[in-house]
Amino acid sequence: MRVLGIDPGLRNLGWGVIEAKGSRLSHVANGTCHSAGTDLAARLLSLHAQLSAVFARYAPDTAAVEQTFVNKDAVATLKLGQARAIALLVPAQFGLAVGEYAPNKVKKTVVGVGHADKAQIQHMVKMQLPGVTLASADAADALAIAICHAFYAAAPQSRMRAS
Amino acid sequence: MRVLGIDPGLRNLGWGVIEAKGSRLSHVANGTCHSAGTDLAARLLSLHAQLSAVFARYAPDTAAVEQTFVNKDAVATLKLGQARAIALLVPAQFGLAVGEYAPNKVKKTVVGVGHADKAQIQHMVKMQLPGVTLASADAADALAIAICHAFYAAAPQSRMRAS
Repeated sequence: MRVLGIDPGLRNLGWGVIEAKGSRLSHVANGTCHSAGTDLAARLLSLHAQLSAVFARYAPDTAAVEQTFVNKDAVATLKLGQARAIALLVPAQFGLAVGEYAPNKVKKTVVGVGHADKAQIQHMVKMQLPGVTLASADAADALAIAICHAFYAAAPQSRMRAS
Repeated sequence: MRVLGIDPGLRNLGWGVIEAKGSRLSHVANGTCHSAGTDLAARLLSLHAQLSAVFARYAPDTAAVEQTFVNKDAVATLKLGQARAIALLVPAQFGLAVGEYAPNKVKKTVVGVGHADKAQIQHMVKMQLPGVTLASADAADALAIAICHAFYAAAPQSRMRAS
């Protein structure tokens, strides 16, 4: 089973693809989609095109997205919502169900504790995917989301959405 | 010039198409795209498909979207951001620039005052587009956005984004 994880962001959208055979995981690819500029429509179009190309190239069987953390900064929440819409739309356009996991669920699954920092996540991602080179912190988070989804999807009776 | 206005919303996304010949406006069509259910990815996919069909059918020359009002309800802001991403993405996929106008700019242009209520907007939309039948309040708002965009686009030297 090939799993694609997405860490949504308007400026930097991380993605990571892993292969899961039972509990055995291996790294396929990871990277970051970038968008910049002041034209929001153009940025969303660019993210959509880049992420669609990733799906077309790596043909995942399933996908998962980090659940959005609603914070007190409404403008940041709005931007994240817009990026997240792309992260949810693209897998749906490829006919895939999209798992959603809260950040602390991802951390608890990958690191063992819900309050792990970025360095711990990156360490555990490297441990579980030997030989991986991480494109960015966002790509590392995306691989962690893919690992989390593989873990729950491997045991369908416990498959669940955190949402 | 054919103008398509969009009033973004996750549950009800209003759209309206008008034809502008100089300052002379006429109604083409208006309607509402609906999405329901708990699966956000499926809802965004549905909105994307419905709105893409509207663009394919009415082939507008330009499009405009109401600028999002960031309010204190972070969950509502997030939902609106996700719907708005679709409203910005679809015109961009059809190769159109997307105008953005703040709600009070739309009201000031269509009604003459920035604090007009929905009944006033609907009245002025009906006055400016004789014979129109409004599909919904959201569709009426979308027509008002199209009228506003036609007004600014008709005088390119004063064309501006409210953003």
